[in-house]
Order: sequence, then structure tokens, then C-alpha cells
Amino acid sequence: MGWNTYNHFGCDISENTILGAANAIIDNKLDKLGYEYVLIDDCWQAPSRDAATGAPVADPNKFPNGMKDLSDKIHDLGLKFGLYSNAGTYTCGGRFGSLGYEEIDAQTYAEWGVDYLKYDNCYNEGLSGTPKISYDRFANMSRALNATGRPILYSMCNWGEDGPWNFASNIANSWRISGDIMDNFGRYDDRCPCTSMLDCKLPGYHCAMARIIDFAAPVGQKAGPGRWNDLDMLEVGNGGMTFDEYVTHFTMWSILKSPLILGNDITNMSNDTLTIITNKAIIDISQDPNGSPANRMWKRAVDGGELSLWAGSLVNNQFIIALLNTAPSEQTVDVEFSDAFFDQGTAYQAQPYTLYNLWETDDDGNWGKSIGTVQGTLRDVKIRAHQTKLWKAIPAPSSKVTVKDKL
Amino acid sequence: MGWNTYNHFGCDISENTILGAANAIIDNKLDKLGYEYVLIDDCWQAPSRDAATGAPVADPNKFPNGMKDLSDKIHDLGLKFGLYSNAGTYTCGGRFGSLGYEEIDAQTYAEWGVDYLKYDNCYNEGLSGTPKISYDRFANMSRALNATGRPILYSMCNWGEDGPWNFASNIANSWRISGDIMDNFGRYDDRCPCTSMLDCKLPGYHCAMARIIDFAAPVGQKAGPGRWNDLDMLEVGNGGMTFDEYVTHFTMWSILKSPLILGNDITNMSNDTLTIITNKAIIDISQDPNGSPANRMWKRAVDGGELSLWAGSLVNNQFIIALLNTAPSEQTVDVEFSDAFFDQGTAYQAQPYTLYNLWETDDDGNWGKSIGTVQGTLRDVKIRAHQTKLWKAIPAPSSKVTVKDKL
Amino acid sequence: MGWNTYNHFGCDISENTILGAANAIIDNKLDKLGYEYVLIDDCWQAPSRDAATGAPVADPNKFPNGMKDLSDKIHDLGLKFGLYSNAGTYTCGGRFGSLGYEEIDAQTYAEWGVDYLKYDNCYNEGLSGTPKISYDRFANMSRALNATGRPILYSMCNWGEDGPWNFASNIANSWRISGDIMDNFGRYDDRCPCTSMLDCKLPGYHCAMARIIDFAAPVGQKAGPGRWNDLDMLEVGNGGMTFDEYVTHFTMWSILKSPLILGNDITNMSNDTLTIITNKAIIDISQDPNGSPANRMWKRAVDGGELSLWAGSLVNNQFIIALLNTAPSEQTVDVEFSDAFFDQGTAYQAQPYTLYNLWETDDDGNWGKSIGTVQGTLRDVKIRAHQTKLWKAIPAPSSKVTVKDKL
Amino acid sequence: MGWNTYNHFGCDISENTILGAANAIIDNKLDKLGYEYVLIDDCWQAPSRDAATGAPVADPNKFPNGMKDLSDKIHDLGLKFGLYSNAGTYTCGGRFGSLGYEEIDAQTYAEWGVDYLKYDNCYNEGLSGTPKISYDRFANMSRALNATGRPILYSMCNWGEDGPWNFASNIANSWRISGDIMDNFGRYDDRCPCTSMLDCKLPGYHCAMARIIDFAAPVGQKAGPGRWNDLDMLEVGNGGMTFDEYVTHFTMWSILKSPLILGNDITNMSNDTLTIITNKAIIDISQDPNGSPANRMWKRAVDGGELSLWAGSLVNNQFIIALLNTAPSEQTVDVEFSDAFFDQGTAYQAQPYTLYNLWETDDDGNWGKSIGTVQGTLRDVKIRAHQTKLWKAIPAPSSKVTVKDKL
Repeated sequence: MGWNTYNHFGCDISENTILGAANAIIDNKLDKLGYEYVLIDDCWQAPSRDAATGAPVADPNKFPNGMKDLSDKIHDLGLKFGLYSNAGTYTCGGRFGSLGYEEIDAQTYAEWGVDYLKYDNCYNEGLSGTPKISYDRFANMSRALNATGRPILYSMCNWGEDGPWNFASNIANSWRISGDIMDNFGRYDDRCPCTSMLDCKLPGYHCAMARIIDFAAPVGQKAGPGRWNDLDMLEVGNGGMTFDEYVTHFTMWSILKSPLILGNDITNMSNDTLTIITNKAIIDISQDPNGSPANRMWKRAVDGGELSLWAGSLVNNQFIIALLNTAPSEQTVDVEFSDAFFDQGTAYQAQPYTLYNLWETDDDGNWGKSIGTVQGTLRDVKIRAHQTKLWKAIPAPSSKVTVKDKL
Repeated sequence: MGWNTYNHFGCDISENTILGAANAIIDNKLDKLGYEYVLIDDCWQAPSRDAATGAPVADPNKFPNGMKDLSDKIHDLGLKFGLYSNAGTYTCGGRFGSLGYEEIDAQTYAEWGVDYLKYDNCYNEGLSGTPKISYDRFANMSRALNATGRPILYSMCNWGEDGPWNFASNIANSWRISGDIMDNFGRYDDRCPCTSMLDCKLPGYHCAMARIIDFAAPVGQKAGPGRWNDLDMLEVGNGGMTFDEYVTHFTMWSILKSPLILGNDITNMSNDTLTIITNKAIIDISQDPNGSPANRMWKRAVDGGELSLWAGSLVNNQFIIALLNTAPSEQTVDVEFSDAFFDQGTAYQAQPYTLYNLWETDDDGNWGKSIGTVQGTLRDVKIRAHQTKLWKAIPAPSSKVTVKDKL
Repeated sequence: MGWNTYNHFGCDISENTILGAANAIIDNKLDKLGYEYVLIDDCWQAPSRDAATGAPVADPNKFPNGMKDLSDKIHDLGLKFGLYSNAGTYTCGGRFGSLGYEEIDAQTYAEWGVDYLKYDNCYNEGLSGTPKISYDRFANMSRALNATGRPILYSMCNWGEDGPWNFASNIANSWRISGDIMDNFGRYDDRCPCTSMLDCKLPGYHCAMARIIDFAAPVGQKAGPGRWNDLDMLEVGNGGMTFDEYVTHFTMWSILKSPLILGNDITNMSNDTLTIITNKAIIDISQDPNGSPANRMWKRAVDGGELSLWAGSLVNNQFIIALLNTAPSEQTVDVEFSDAFFDQGTAYQAQPYTLYNLWETDDDGNWGKSIGTVQGTLRDVKIRAHQTKLWKAIPAPSSKVTVKDKL
Repeated sequence: MGWNTYNHFGCDISENTILGAANAIIDNKLDKLGYEYVLIDDCWQAPSRDAATGAPVADPNKFPNGMKDLSDKIHDLGLKFGLYSNAGTYTCGGRFGSLGYEEIDAQTYAEWGVDYLKYDNCYNEGLSGTPKISYDRFANMSRALNATGRPILYSMCNWGEDGPWNFASNIANSWRISGDIMDNFGRYDDRCPCTSMLDCKLPGYHCAMARIIDFAAPVGQKAGPGRWNDLDMLEVGNGGMTFDEYVTHFTMWSILKSPLILGNDITNMSNDTLTIITNKAIIDISQDPNGSPANRMWKRAVDGGELSLWAGSLVNNQFIIALLNTAPSEQTVDVEFSDAFFDQGTAYQAQPYTLYNLWETDDDGNWGKSIGTVQGTLRDVKIRAHQTKLWKAIPAPSSKVTVKDKL
């Protein structure tokens, strides 16, 4: 969890941008919720490496006090500090890349106090096409980071090429699964042309949020503690979606255990934005120690879109159930526990559960309002266009059942 | 044929689990039917290899007497003993893998008296993507096993990646063709996303039984004596399917010549389960010396599913015909001998056959009840939802024809 | 053009089989029509190579006088002699393969007087997956054959894997484009599962004849003199198709410039079979010096099948037009010259042509009966189920037009 | 921008052909519009390289004064000079290729004064299949050209294999994205069989113009200054399309920033041809310094074809909007600014724009006639069969709005 420059600021960054965001994290108490990484994406680099040593150099205009100084300031705020580089000749923004410079770059990052590296995929000299070719390229930086002795979270960003969910869990903490996100609910865009990421030859960018959810569905099985599918940084607060759509965005990223990296201008947030990104109940699902991404139990075509049911396991024998509506109109759905607890087997399917709607507050104002104890079927759920509903389900004794159906 | 820990017990195994199952094989006389391998799947390993020698070590808590002792006990019962490892850094369950340790592992297995190795595919460092890359990785263990001098059946489990049916017959006795089976008849699950295994980039797991049959149809041609397609271990008796569905499961695995490895708790079986797994007539088809997997002669869409006709050759000029109904309702079908004996040519198509229904018993209580001598067409076969019917067909003189049609 | 043992005799071959066929070529005057290669397919090999030299050895039971002797006898008949081997550890029939033995095998074949090598693809140790991997494996034998100094036609048989039409024209005289042919018009068979050969991961066998035509359509562009697409050996005369179907088979193989290798028992042929394989007009199209395969100009769905129009260029400014009907009922078609001469441009499209139906005889009994001089459109062509009509088109002066339409 | 021999003359070229075209450029003042490269495609080579040095040699019959002399003459006209070679054993036309001769060929081209190299992909010895394999082969010539010290534009022509848009921007100035163009609007041809170029195994040729536009849509994102998608040489003036179709051709090539290389006989052009290729407004779009290819904002099926909306950015905060109709009948369309300015965000979408139709002339006879200042929606645009309309859009003050809709 943290914040990254790119989605809102692109290349228009400086020490002030970073420190402003870091302070906004503190001011908004986002750090108390877990947002701890302050991440500089592309374009922090000077025009060239140090001519004598080959070491990376920060842009002296944007970062006049250097990266070590900035890193210290971030650390002094109790936050962590991250940088970006690229497994190719240049970065996507045209700065120097790290291909062939893995050791000196990792060593320099460690000296600067870097805690997190996002490692991108542009200008890679054709080094893709089999898992082995991609693995070798990205493993070089993994080894270099480990060799520094400093714990640095390694966030691979090869856009899902060659299936990082199959090969990267040994070498990275997370890996992007698709082309770059677009701040839009579900519009098809030719720049994100693949309909699946399992063998996509052009991940591209301008991938609408709901399309990324679709891409993520089959690969959730490969993630777990310390090895995450990264659905890309959040767009919440950037203005391209409605409240319900951003709720879907934040909810689905959480239950799929994607890193939650804010991508908006956190120095200037609306109440709606703050409401979404500070929902403690949703964040708890994201950070549940079980680390188990939700699975899509079914997907059904409805007019203009799809309904889908998602379910997942939390620690302590608790569960989540989510219902997503990508259609442009409200839908009414029965949620069968035989579907929601399909993975747990018949005993769990027959069990009553107390359900908590995690986007409503209880009488104390805490996220997660009980909607009763249900057995068998949760009937007649209304779900608005582009909305996602998320319930936590806790097994309950039969004596408490308030709704019982289909057993 | 044998039994494996995984489908029922997962990682919750111990010497007692194994010996209990071995004794259950004897007590239920399953060994007389051919079930001879007792197989320990993942999670038998200690936290780490022997620090001095690098040799594999069994978990001393689960296997306090060690593997050699357990192997001896299994052998003393007249059974054979098998283990599991993985062609990667770790096993799927996170134990040490064999990649780079092929020789010492094979040597140790041989010393322990291992007769069978299941060799899995997790954490493989990107070593897939072309048949050559996969071949080399799995051939390393093949050579190591052969070098021990002990006959050890080599059961490759790379989930069908890169087409093992094309490259593995030289190096392995069998190879898995898909992601892991799910104890369910035919439900689509996002964790098994491919619709064909011919170029699947994410074999996954939770592959429903009938979907694996579909995956197996085109690759039957590549199997034969000593080189088998492995459709994964059986789920019969694990509770997720009906009697008819488990009959389909056991029948199709048999005619497709998949290894028949029980995956249920054989110390505690229902009569239905025992009935299915002890059908001697079906097992005889599975073990027919001809070793020729049945081929699908046609597939036809019906409401909610498909009907398919399968046919195969046995030794001594005998044949099998199977009819599978994946639809949720009973179907009535005419089986044309021009389809069933398509491969044998027109003379065989015109020939009368005495047909034996291998899921009914004759007057002596033996499996395989004659349904008469038929020429041309077997008319009006009723086949229930999710059921498979299997007939043995033996050429008969024309004088014996009881049903003659369409010639 | 020639004859090969496999389609009719499989592994049941001997010196007598070969000599019988060779003599049948002479007796039926097939050599006068161009059938000159007598080819022994798989299973001629002894159980093992010469232990001392590693040289290939013929099966002494089947070929008691050895291959050199047989080759001499074939040559004495004025015919040419060919053998089969395999770019893998074993041949498809389980005999020793040539992988790693290219030089000694090529040298031995040359010493035996071999004029043609069919080189198969079984048990290839995973050596496929990129064009480079396949190229290297098959180029090894190409170099070895060239190094012998004896002209040996090199017939690659890797079933279209990795696109030999893209990489093999430098190293081979022909290359198979698909899995093995089945003696059947158009039935789908699961053993030939791909719907296109452009990226097929399981070429298989039991590929119906009309399906191979479909596979051939896009790759005709890659063939030309000395570099041919091989659609597999002929099934004409083997009994699985009707007269019209075999006419389609022979016609399409000819206009697509596939090698014409007879696969029937030529010591025992029906009049129908002889009629088809001795049609001099069709053979002339096949052997036209221009060497330009026909292209499919359009394909249209009709009830139960497809109609397609094919066109090609001959030497001396002559052309062919073919119409293929894969549907089970007669069709009536207008052939537009704007389609048939699309490649030649508007002047050719407007030009009158005298058309000769190459499956009818003229008054002198020669194949190729004039149906008049047509301009613009050939109207109301009746084409029976599974039939192919083939016309030769020769530009004619306008004064001779008998039918003029659509200009 | 320039002219190339191939589309019109094929292999029938000589010094006179080239000089004739060069003079025609001057005579028609095409150089003033930017057409500066005179390019010799395949078949300029002598039968073999210089036996002593291995250097390339021009065909002495076609080029009796040699290439240096011809290059000097071209340069004396103020034009630039280009040649063709091939990254394989032979060129597509069967002349010697450059594979393995990169250094001496590049050096010789530099000595000849070559300014541009088109580098083709035939007979490549299987050197494709992964981006890495293709990259290495084409990077060899890139390095060789750079080593000469002479600026030589490097035009890669590997037909889109292995995704050059992903790997070639470091090594080439442009790369072909598909098989060869056909002088036809949209006809499907089996020789260009792929429906997308993202993973096409047979790029082929005879790709109709509108199909190439479709192929280009997803890869526009990868192009920019100095790294261009090449949609192949122009067919304008070669006779296979109507005026509206050639307008579509020239317009789409321009807004997609494909090189504009004339392929007709420029010594003999119709007024229509001249009108199209000299439209200064369209050429300005093509050469806009921003170098940003237009993106397809939507595509909608209409009877017999598709309508599509394209939009792009120019320098100085100007924009283009294009509407393409591939259907055979006129269509009426509303162009929503929320689509056309989707990439620019809501402020731009709400902004009024003065629109200039770049295929109409203003009162002074210059291309680009104002059609008013529009806000929100451009209503009821009529677009003929196969036509493309292109507008330049310049933000205008609200006071100037003549048409306001949908805000």
C-alpha cells in the first residue's frame, strides 16, 4: 500500500511533488491505514548516468538535494521510499534503463535507502517470447537487489508477458498482469487489444478497469503471501469514473489482493475519494494474512454487460462474497451459498453465515453493517450499474438464522 | 494402478496414513485387481535437504522411521512404493524441489526402494515455452532415474505444457495432460481457463472431470504401451459426483488408458465406491495389452451438453464402444457401426457383434452382460444424464444376429 | 511423381512388394506419364544399426538381397529409388531414427543408390517450437545429403510444424504441410484437431482429404519450382472415397502442385482408379513448368459444405480454373472472370478464353474437351456433391466468343 | 516520403526507370512537398557478389554505370537515394541476401551514397519465432549501418513477425507491420490469411488496403518520431481502387504516420492521382512534428462493413478527426466530441472547435475548408462507400460556436 506519482503526475514530478504527497499521507492519516510506500515512477533520472562510474543519477533540477536526502526525509516521516527503473535500454519515458546495469543500480538504490523498486519493460531488445527469456532478464535485477543486503520490495512490471504468474514468484514480490490501466470503467480501447492476458502479444495501455478485473480472474490462483498479482495502480480520485465505479475498483483490487497504490493527487482529495480509500473494512480484506485472492465463481451475461460472483477465504474461518455488475442497469440477483462456498464443500454450503455489508457502516459508524444471518441463499440482491457489493461472511449457529432458503 | 495421498489428504499425511491405505488395499483385495502402487504425493519432505550431502530427507515428524523403513513395509505387503518431487526450485507445496538435484535425488529414491516417481512442475524458473525447454528439464530426471539401475516408473506432471504427448514418450512412462482435476462433473471454473490443452498457457487446477475428457480426445493418438496420457488421479469416492458421474469418470479413464490411481480414503469406502473401482471388466479394458486408447468418433451438441461416441480396439480382435452424455437429461441414441468401426473399415462395419454391457452383470454375477448380437445399428440406446455406457464388442457369425439394421 | 508403400501396405513390406509395384509401374506404363519414384516408407530397417560402424542396415528378412541390390533392380527398370527415415531417435514405426546419424545415413543412402529421402518427425526429443529449432534439425540432413554428391530429392515430413513453407525452401525440395491423410473425403476426426496449420500444435493424422485442401489454401503462395507443399500421398484407389471424390483429390493435388505419389496397390487397380491417375491433361497441369500453385479466389458457405473457386497460371499465358464443391448436394454456380483472373488484372478479366474441361475427352479421345469460347462469365455450372471441375483457359480472339456476359 | 520501384515495376527496373522517376519527382514538384527518397527495391543485384571481396555488385545490364554513379545523379537532383536488401540467404526475388554479409554490405552502401535501406525477410533460415531471434537478426544490420558513420534510414521489413513494434524502435526507423499490400480496397485474399498481426504466423501478401488499416489500429501506440509503423508502399495511381478508395488510402496512411512512399508510375499520372498525392494539408498531417499516430476511438459494424472514428493530436494543441466507412453504401454518422477527444479528457470534450475538411479547398484554393465552429457533436455526417473524411480541429472560443449540441 502506498502512493505513486505516475497516474496523476506522469513525468511532471519533483522533490516537492514527492514530499507534498508524503505529507498528505501523514496529514490524512493514510499511514495509519497502511499506506506507507511513497513511490517515484518514471522520469526521476538525469539525462545520463555518471560518466565515470556508470551509477544512476537523479535529475538535478527535479531533485536538487538528491535521492538520498529525499529518502531520508520520507523515512523521517515514518514512510518508505520507492523508485522506478526499467529492464531495457531506456525507460518507457526515454531515460536510461537498467538492462546491463543491474548491479550498480541495485547497489545505488540501496545506498539511497530505497525500499521498493518498480521495474518496467520498455525497450527490452526483444528479450521476451518464452518464460525463460523473460525470467532471466527480470531475475538479474532480483539477484542484484538481494545482493545489496537491504530489503527492497521488487515490483515486476512486464505487463503479463510470458506469464509472470507462472515464473516470477521466486524472484519478485509482485508482477503486473496486464497493460496500463485507464481511468475508465469498461470502455474497449484498441490500445489494449487482447481479450485475455494468458498469451497476449501486445499488453498495451488504456486498459479499462473492469477489463483488468476480467484479465485477473484466471490468475488469482497463482498469488499468495509475498507473491502478488498487480492489477496496476489505483485511479480512485482521478475523475474518470463515478463513485460506484471507484467503489468497484477499490473493492475488486482489495479482494484480488492487488497492491493498493494510490494514483491520484492526494494533496487535494474529495470526500468521496477519501471515503473510498479509507474504508478500513475493505483494506482489512486486502491485507488479510491469509493472502488468498478471491475467485470468480460464475459470470453471467446480462444486457450490456455481465454479472459475476466472487468468493474468497480470510483467516479465522471467515469468508468474503462479492457481486459485480458491469452492465449499465440495476440487476437483481440471488446469491446461492452452493456457489459462494463451492470451494469449501457441502458442509460449508449448508452452514448459516452472518453477513456484513462492508460498504455500509454499523451503528458505531464502523464499516461493515450486519444484514442478518442467512442460510442457503441470499435473495433479491439489488446491484446498481457498475457497482460491486462486498460481504464478509462469518459462520453462525443455526439458532441465529434470520433467512433460510434452498437447503 | 494404485493409490495416491493427494486428492483426499493433501499435505495432511504421515506414515500411518500410508500404511493405513496400504493395508486397506490388501483388506479390500484391491491388489488382486491390479492396484499395486502406494504413492506419497507432496509434503513428505523435511524442511530442508541434508546440509552435508544435499540428499533429500523425509519429514521426521510425519515419517519417524524414515522412507526406507516405510518402503520395506509396503514391499512386505506385496505392493510397490512411490514418491513425489518437482522439476523446480520448490514443490507446489513449498518443499524443496529437485531442479539441479536430479542425480542425488534419484539415487536416494533408489536406495529407499522407490518404484514410482511423480514429478511436478511448480516454481520452474521459467523453464517452459518450447518443447525443447520442457524436454530438457524433464529428461534430466529421466536420465538420473535410469542411471540408478532400479526400475522406477516415471510419471511426468507438467500439466500438458508444451505438449508432452509430442516429446515425452522417450523419457517418461506417463505424462499429465492438463491442470489438476476437481471432484466435480463438468462445472467451468476460472482456475482451469483453457478450452483446449494443445497450446494452453495456464493449465491451472479445478478442471472438472468431463472437461479433462474433452482435453484428452485429440491426444489419445499419442499414447500406447509404456507411454500414457495421465488424466490425473481419480476422484471416485470423494463425494463431489453422483454414482453415474463416477461411473463415467472410471469408465472414461479406463478406455482412455489413463493410469488408474485412486484418490479417495480407501480405509473408509461406501458400497457404491467399491462397486465402481472393483469392476473387473472395466479394469480389464484399462489394462488390455493392446494399450490403445479409445478415440472419439463423433460429438454432437444436445440441450445443455454433448453426446459423444468413443471406440477402441482390444487384443484378440475385440472392441469397445462407449457412449457419453454430458447433458443434464436422458438422451436416446442410435449407435451406427459405420461410426463405431470407422477405423476398421467397411468389412468390420458390416460384421455382426455380440455386445456386452460392462456395467451390468451376467447370470453368474460377473461384469459384462450380453445384450445380444447386433449388426449395423444399435438402436434406441437410453443414456441418463452424465452417464457413460460401455460395451465390449466381439465379432459373431451372421447366424447369431438378433438385431440387424442399416446395412 | 511415383509410388510409396505406406498408404496401402503400412509396415507389411518386402523386396517383393517393392519390385511388384515397380513392375506394375512399367506394366501400366505409368512411367510414361511421369511416375518414376519407387519409395519405401517406414519399416525397412533392421532391428538395429550396424554395431561396428553405426551405419543403417535393412531388415534382412524383408530385404534379403539388401538395398543396393533392390536399388539396382529399380534403376534397371528405368525408375528411381527412394527411402524413408526420421529426424528423431526412432521412426514413427519404432525403427532406428537418423537424429545424430545424419552423415552416415546420407552416405549410406548414396552408396545404395537412393534418389529420394522422405524424412519424418517422430520422437524428436522436443526439437520443435520455433522455426529455428525445426530448421536446424532438418537442415542437418539436408547438408548431409548434399555432401554425398549424389542428387537426392529431400522430402521433409515435419507435418507443417513451425511453418516449413517459411523456412524450408532453402533446404528441402518439398515439405508436408499437415498431419497424415485419411482415405475419406471430409469427415472431421479428433486425431487431426487443428482447423488451420499456420500454428498447429498437434498435426496428428486422420486428416480428411478436403480438410488438407483447406489447410493448403494459404500456403500455396510459398511454393514454386523445386520447393513444393506436400499435401501427403494419394489415396486414389484405396477405397474410402467415391469416383467424384477421388477426382477432386487428384485434381486438387495437381493444381496445388503437391507431389503426386500413388499410395494404392498398383498391382491391382480398377478401371476407375486407372482412369483418374492416368489423366494426362491433369498430370500436365501438375507438372507445368511454371510451377505455380493455384490460389483460392473465393470460398462460399453452402448447405452442408462450401463452394470454392481456384485459379492458377500455366506457362505460355495459359490458365486454369477449378471449382470445388464440398457440400453433399449438387450446386449451380456462375464463374465470374473478374474472380478467376483477379490476379491478372482488368485486361485479362475482360479477355475471351477458350475453355477445356480436363475431365472430359475430345473427339480424339484426348483429355480436355473444349466447351467454347467464353467472355465475362461462365454461367450455370453444375457441380455435383464432392466434385471438382477443372478447366484450362486459353486466351482467344474476340471473334471466337460463343458466350459473352457481364462486361 | 519518396518513391519506390516495386509496386509498379516489380523486377523490371533499370537506371532509366530510376532516373525517370527521379526526374518526374522534380518535374511534378513532388520534392517540394517532401517526396525526397528514390528507392530501388528488389532485383538491382548482379547474379553474384564480387568473388574476391564478397561485396555486393549491381546488375551491370540494368545499371551499366553502377550504383555510385546513379546515387550521384539522384543527389545532384537534390533527392536522396535508397536500396533494398534482405535479412536472409536470398532476397525475395532470388538475388543474394545480406545475412552474414551485414558489414560489407552496409559499408558498400555507404560508399555508394545510400541514404535509405529497405531490409526484407525472405529465406531467413528459420530465424524467427521469438522477438529475441528476430531482433538479433535485424540488429546486426542496424549496427553495421551505424558503423559506417553515414546516416542511413533503416526501414525494416519483417512483415510484423514477432512484433517489431515491441522490439525494433531501438534499431530501426520504421518497420513493416503486415504482409505486402494489394492494390484493392478490402477484398479478403487467402494469401494474407491472418485476421490480426499480433501473432500472425503467415503475413503473406495480397493484403487489401483496408485490412492493413485494421492491422495497424492496435500498434499505433508504439510509433512516434523516428520509430514508425510502415503500412507498406502506396498503391495510389496503380488502378485497382476508386478515387474515394485512394483518398481513404492516402488519408489513413497519413494519420497513422506510415511512411508515404509512392508506388505508382510517377512519369505518367492522372489528375486524380496527382490531386491525392499532392494534398498539402494531408501531407502536413503526415509530417506533423508531434509524430503521434491517430487512434481508433470506436468501430461499429454496419451492413457489409464497418464505420470507424479515428482521432489524433498535432503540435500546437491542434487535433485531427477522421471517419472511415468500409461499407459498400453511404452512411450517416454523428461524431461525438466525447469520443473524438476521449484521450484529452472532459475539458477538451466540452470545448468548441473550428473544423476544417482537409479534402475540400478554401476560397483561396488551399486544402482545408472551414465547416464552422462546433461544440459537442458534429451531426449527420454523410460518408460515402469506402470514403474517409478528415477534419483538422482547432480549439475556438465559445463565442464563435456555430453548432452546439450534447453538452
